[in-house]
Amino acid sequence: MNHIDYHDFLKRYRLPEPVFVTQPNMPSLEDYQKSIGEIWENKWLTNNGYFHRKLEQRIAEYLDVKHICLFCNGTIALLVALHALRINSGEVITTPFTFPATPHVLYWNGIRPVFCDIDKNTFNLDPNKIEKLISPDTKAILPVHVYGNPCDVEKIQEIADRHGLHVIYDAAHAFGVRYKNRPLCQYGDISMLSFHATKLFSTGEGGALVVKSKAQKERINFLKNFGIASQEMIIGPGINGKMNEFQAAFGLLQLDTIDKEISRRAALTHTYKNMLSDVKGITLFSDKPDVQPNYAYLPILIDPKLYGMTRDDLYLILEKCNIMTRKYFYPLCSTYSCYASLPSSHPESLSVAHEIANNILCLPLYSSLEMETVQLICNIIKDLKISK
Amino acid sequence: MNHIDYHDFLKRYRLPEPVFVTQPNMPSLEDYQKSIGEIWENKWLTNNGYFHRKLEQRIAEYLDVKHICLFCNGTIALLVALHALRINSGEVITTPFTFPATPHVLYWNGIRPVFCDIDKNTFNLDPNKIEKLISPDTKAILPVHVYGNPCDVEKIQEIADRHGLHVIYDAAHAFGVRYKNRPLCQYGDISMLSFHATKLFSTGEGGALVVKSKAQKERINFLKNFGIASQEMIIGPGINGKMNEFQAAFGLLQLDTIDKEISRRAALTHTYKNMLSDVKGITLFSDKPDVQPNYAYLPILIDPKLYGMTRDDLYLILEKCNIMTRKYFYPLCSTYSCYASLPSSHPESLSVAHEIANNILCLPLYSSLEMETVQLICNIIKDLKISK
Repeated sequence: MNHIDYHDFLKRYRLPEPVFVTQPNMPSLEDYQKSIGEIWENKWLTNNGYFHRKLEQRIAEYLDVKHICLFCNGTIALLVALHALRINSGEVITTPFTFPATPHVLYWNGIRPVFCDIDKNTFNLDPNKIEKLISPDTKAILPVHVYGNPCDVEKIQEIADRHGLHVIYDAAHAFGVRYKNRPLCQYGDISMLSFHATKLFSTGEGGALVVKSKAQKERINFLKNFGIASQEMIIGPGINGKMNEFQAAFGLLQLDTIDKEISRRAALTHTYKNMLSDVKGITLFSDKPDVQPNYAYLPILIDPKLYGMTRDDLYLILEKCNIMTRKYFYPLCSTYSCYASLPSSHPESLSVAHEIANNILCLPLYSSLEMETVQLICNIIKDLKISK
Repeated sequence: MNHIDYHDFLKRYRLPEPVFVTQPNMPSLEDYQKSIGEIWENKWLTNNGYFHRKLEQRIAEYLDVKHICLFCNGTIALLVALHALRINSGEVITTPFTFPATPHVLYWNGIRPVFCDIDKNTFNLDPNKIEKLISPDTKAILPVHVYGNPCDVEKIQEIADRHGLHVIYDAAHAFGVRYKNRPLCQYGDISMLSFHATKLFSTGEGGALVVKSKAQKERINFLKNFGIASQEMIIGPGINGKMNEFQAAFGLLQLDTIDKEISRRAALTHTYKNMLSDVKGITLFSDKPDVQPNYAYLPILIDPKLYGMTRDDLYLILEKCNIMTRKYFYPLCSTYSCYASLPSSHPESLSVAHEIANNILCLPLYSSLEMETVQLICNIIKDLKISK
């Protein structure tokens, strides 16, 4: 900001009210109040209630998958997924460029995370770097479809098959994404979806596992309800992962508007892309062949040399303009004190991940965001470049 | 049922509609719909929202405690409590006469449960049997206030202090109970409360930890939100234990009626007690000095020799009469396949627990239960005795 008139800049661009990086897509209040009335009639608040059963069926249909298990949140879902596959010791290979929940569920299952560097184009696990991290203690690969961009699912499966490893996908961002005309969440052994308030599709808090068989679904249903297989039979150390009826009823209504939500986000994304495409030092994801995206996030990668300003400075200036962006994901999980001493956390072997984490910024994206606000954000980013 | 006319008996007693062992106390639908409207205005669904903050404060006031942390459910609360105290290895002494969640959270924290027998009067941990189970690997005692009846908190604390052990109470049943004019959940290092739909006070799913200091509350608040201490600082392997706004808003309204709920349950309990007190072979809890109870459950203990019928037979006959009771807690946790091979699970050292588990039955109790239904249930139990 040395070369521009800071005061004048803020006067031109500062919004009167803060714009957040995301905002939940709220269904019609009247419709939800009607659903609440039905919950009152049922007097059934949780434990596989009416709305829970209906939502499970509707999401399976929407995603074009056979078996899905709803959860109170995505973290507990992923926790149970690993336990269901009896992965509760040894090592699991995962990415450091993710939300803390990913490595944390490994901790809770007694597993040592092994961080693998990411690909500089997809920001996902670099399949070429996985194999050298496999040890006799490796049990599984836990890749993340970051921002909903598909991992290299074929190469990862090939590696897993060659070494006899499970693949569990953290598909928290990937609701509704299709790859090669198949639901992305059908790849691997199990995929976890998150329905947190900040997600494309939301139940307030919430999550799900997409599983491969009826037997696996039944086992996971037991495990998310304390392992209770019947009134007098407990099959193992389950946990409470149940989604309640308030969440499920909310989700059912949200699902009615999800296609509208996605197409509105697509339109906003296109504006971002058009307006920022010629800004030197700012890179946006390009459309990928075979991928039907969900427009969940709007990450930009800043090259401080070419753009003339660091990500952190841009973040601060946007904040001063009342535009709340997010350094998503920064810091890398491998730098948390609880993981920093792991051999795989050495920054040298995670150089791409460090570079991306230091230069990434997610811009506001949600359906009720005004097109004019997107244009304003783009103009700020362009203007800052020109002023340098 | 050999000596009575079964057909005639069912004709006399069978209810047209099933009566469940419990039913949630639903606040006014209109009031809740109004709260939902406020959530819509806030567009804030989780992560320490308006209703969350308000409920935390109101529950603390109601319970007469200083620090409370809300959770998505009681199991995740207990999981985090142990982690917060850094109990994640070795052994913890607990009771086998409890819900599966109690030992399961030990599993999830990497701890081996050591089951201790219970007292035949309180159904809680027998303090005289704890000390001989303490080994160099023991980290804590995890007693349960079963049915809301206080454990022998003084003796347990004495033992813990003598051996340098933590005491974490599973107070899932004990919402609002006072002992010696102090909140029961203030004893020990941390107490866990459950707000599941089947509990006296409910948020659909839900739970809380009552903690001792502001610092502990802050640490637990981090841990239930992935260990996120600030945007760029993760303090450890937390988890997602957050209560959402739908739950919190429900709880706030329930809290308004909790005293009415308790006094109605007290009245129903007194009828049960009066009508069943002279039935040989049926024992009900007697009122205890220094205890202000919460009337959460109505357990009866059946002496098959004196009563002339086993608990399992009584359960089946009541079921045929459309009265759903619950063998709560049967089977003992020490008999689950995942714990049965532990040295402490040997039935010989858990003889009281086995006897109670085989002969206990919880009868229907909730505020909307008709007094006539209670009388009918008591009459069935009396008649079955006379018919023998």
